[in-house]
Amino acid sequence: MSEDAIAALKASLGAERARDDLATRSLYRSDDTPEEHLPAVVLFPHSHEEVQAIVRIAGRHRLPLTPRGAGSGNVGGALPVQGGAVLSFECMQKVLEYSPAERLIRVQSGCITGEIDRIASRDGLAYLPDPGSSPYCRIGGNLAMNAGGPHAVKYGVTRDHVLALRAVTGRGETLDTGVRTSKGVVGYDLTRLLVGSEGTLALITEATLRLLPRPAGRALLRAAFTHSRDACAAVNRVMQQDLLPSAVEFMDARALQAVRSMGAAASLPAATQALLLVEVDGELESLPRQLTRMAAALDGAGLLQLEQGQDPDAIAALWTARKALSLATKAMAPRKINEDVVVPVPRLCELLTEIEAIATEERLQIVSFGHAGNGNLHVNFLVDPADHGEMQRAQRGLDRLFRKVLALQGTLSGEHGIGSVKRAFVDRELDPVSLRLQRHIKELFDPFGILNPGKLFPDLPA
Amino acid sequence: MSEDAIAALKASLGAERARDDLATRSLYRSDDTPEEHLPAVVLFPHSHEEVQAIVRIAGRHRLPLTPRGAGSGNVGGALPVQGGAVLSFECMQKVLEYSPAERLIRVQSGCITGEIDRIASRDGLAYLPDPGSSPYCRIGGNLAMNAGGPHAVKYGVTRDHVLALRAVTGRGETLDTGVRTSKGVVGYDLTRLLVGSEGTLALITEATLRLLPRPAGRALLRAAFTHSRDACAAVNRVMQQDLLPSAVEFMDARALQAVRSMGAAASLPAATQALLLVEVDGELESLPRQLTRMAAALDGAGLLQLEQGQDPDAIAALWTARKALSLATKAMAPRKINEDVVVPVPRLCELLTEIEAIATEERLQIVSFGHAGNGNLHVNFLVDPADHGEMQRAQRGLDRLFRKVLALQGTLSGEHGIGSVKRAFVDRELDPVSLRLQRHIKELFDPFGILNPGKLFPDLPA
Repeated sequence: MSEDAIAALKASLGAERARDDLATRSLYRSDDTPEEHLPAVVLFPHSHEEVQAIVRIAGRHRLPLTPRGAGSGNVGGALPVQGGAVLSFECMQKVLEYSPAERLIRVQSGCITGEIDRIASRDGLAYLPDPGSSPYCRIGGNLAMNAGGPHAVKYGVTRDHVLALRAVTGRGETLDTGVRTSKGVVGYDLTRLLVGSEGTLALITEATLRLLPRPAGRALLRAAFTHSRDACAAVNRVMQQDLLPSAVEFMDARALQAVRSMGAAASLPAATQALLLVEVDGELESLPRQLTRMAAALDGAGLLQLEQGQDPDAIAALWTARKALSLATKAMAPRKINEDVVVPVPRLCELLTEIEAIATEERLQIVSFGHAGNGNLHVNFLVDPADHGEMQRAQRGLDRLFRKVLALQGTLSGEHGIGSVKRAFVDRELDPVSLRLQRHIKELFDPFGILNPGKLFPDLPA
Repeated sequence: MSEDAIAALKASLGAERARDDLATRSLYRSDDTPEEHLPAVVLFPHSHEEVQAIVRIAGRHRLPLTPRGAGSGNVGGALPVQGGAVLSFECMQKVLEYSPAERLIRVQSGCITGEIDRIASRDGLAYLPDPGSSPYCRIGGNLAMNAGGPHAVKYGVTRDHVLALRAVTGRGETLDTGVRTSKGVVGYDLTRLLVGSEGTLALITEATLRLLPRPAGRALLRAAFTHSRDACAAVNRVMQQDLLPSAVEFMDARALQAVRSMGAAASLPAATQALLLVEVDGELESLPRQLTRMAAALDGAGLLQLEQGQDPDAIAALWTARKALSLATKAMAPRKINEDVVVPVPRLCELLTEIEAIATEERLQIVSFGHAGNGNLHVNFLVDPADHGEMQRAQRGLDRLFRKVLALQGTLSGEHGIGSVKRAFVDRELDPVSLRLQRHIKELFDPFGILNPGKLFPDLPA
């Protein structure tokens, strides 16, 4: 059956854009998750219409279709866990329409996120969501996962910047959602139903995105603390000011240790056990006063050092430790189990205390950092898959982490999504009524179950 | 059958909160739409659990349930068009939780919108969506319709300020959606699916709302123009500044005539044919510069007068004409057909030209005003239902208005919703694929068809 499907896909797209040679298939067997699944074929459509043709063929042959942006996700969202086809959007990078007067841009979903912002910047506009991967990730992946990033604390997440979508449902139909205006209330909000649905409801081919005035300037404060408890208290003070910072990033002691080993924390006092970066942005004349108030909020028990940067070089220098983190943690162990939990900001300290207890009691290396202004912490378990005992302790640690997060009224994912990797945990957070409705919505949009199967939903109870 | 249902409802709620006397039923037969539908019974639940009990009884008896907030909507959303029960949320006004540290408030859905903002203001916080009816409308109605208001141009609409909902589906199940944190991507976004669904999917009983720092100050510019064309050009210049105004309100010549007749436009030059109000808000020290830039943007062809207000009294004085408008238009004719269309901001002038042509060619009184920064215009046809010819001309005018709005890539409703009044027009905007999916979603949530029947969806084609 798969052979027939592949033949039909080759006939539709041409053999050069429906590739089943092992070399191509191997290139698309992984994303930023430590797992590999070989697809039967890799597809490179150029247009909405070609995606539609693919979905219709896949529907007839019940061929699993896994959409893929840049493959930069780390929950296995782009992994073809049930085989079938990987549908790569990398040949769909067209800007279809750019209207600075309407402050919107309409792009194909393979557009690089950072490129969209770069285009807008020419007219003093900005596409504000900026996940860490924005230099290379694709907007379709951002839409599928409802991506966040450091500036979400002030500007919200991907969902908040989408006006309209064009997509292909699992039946191969064209679905147009939303409006191009900044307001519109006709019918149900299918736009935001698709955003964050991880490619399980429809394949997004085009997006109309909202652009906003580009902040004229930014400035950064870097605060070193003797203890994560003190940093958490400072985050709470920062988040009670009557102005919103544009970023509030946190790094724990182990994160600092990781970047120190790369020489990227040379200017920090030796006693530093927790670091905060607080960014403000806006009108240039407002920055000094914003900085003054944020500095006052950061000042408190355990503050060792407070540095500030106002020009781009100084800001970049202060970000060094944070930017080095991803590489640094990858170098620390063969595998990184990368969690993405969120708790209410006033409960961050309790969460960090529990993480320290888990690390100690289960003898695990855990590096925590993240978007503290949203209460969003990336908790990284650094493990060696060859060490069976350690992997078991990590599983126990994960279980304990999730229990604590939910006890603190938090959520299991703030911006990475569920994908294939976390779906076993979803029913800890969502109750059966919500899950049943979501499964039924999935069936409505994708009656043949071909769109990104094996993602988001937990297995049905036996 | 209805009698059995009413008996069961009386047994469940007590006779004093399940009222079928004619006096009570008559009180709930209308909203702010010129139509009347007498319900069989009016229900006054106190809690989520009581709403759940009601829905279960209604499901067993196939009794239509029409949810009602303050009855301030003007598309018939709260009208029991198929009889059955009106479920009034007026006895569900509890604040269940208020957490300034988390910047959130959890309320029952009968809470008055303005009261929520008043509570938040004690701690320097704000609930920012402010429909014109906020002094008396209820948050449940705002959520059902995704209400907007003058400040949406900067702060977005109701949808953008909701974290989580508790609701009762048509099966009588409790549905909890969303998270209490500012980020969360576990599962489909059922929160925003319910917002704007006009009570057709589930009855919202509780809402967790996001609060933001209260703007420290505001200032207002009032600009009088010789022609609406010049005012539209000024709106475009205002909306291209690199800062967002907090409101951009427009009034056309007939709107000014209406308020003049009430003596509420005394300070305007006699030649004024279009008026703009541009508000800025934020840090006090930023206001002068914001005003300077907005004043420069407003200055151009056709500007007759530019006034500004910085203290509350001066601001209130400048708003006078706009505030008098609702009453003034109601006094002008026996009936007001109140439309709520949106077009891209650069197309506003074309829309107004078409509206003038409709008024002239169909000999109709049309008063237009609204949230010009969103391209959202309230187009009011002032008619006499006793004048059959005029009513026919109004229908033709409406048809022409909607055709123009869609040709300009706009939408038929920006903030009022569809309700019973506009549902015949929905399939002009939504294509069959989208409508079919929406109808199926409705069936999933409300298999017995008891939740606000006769709303939002057009009749099925014969």
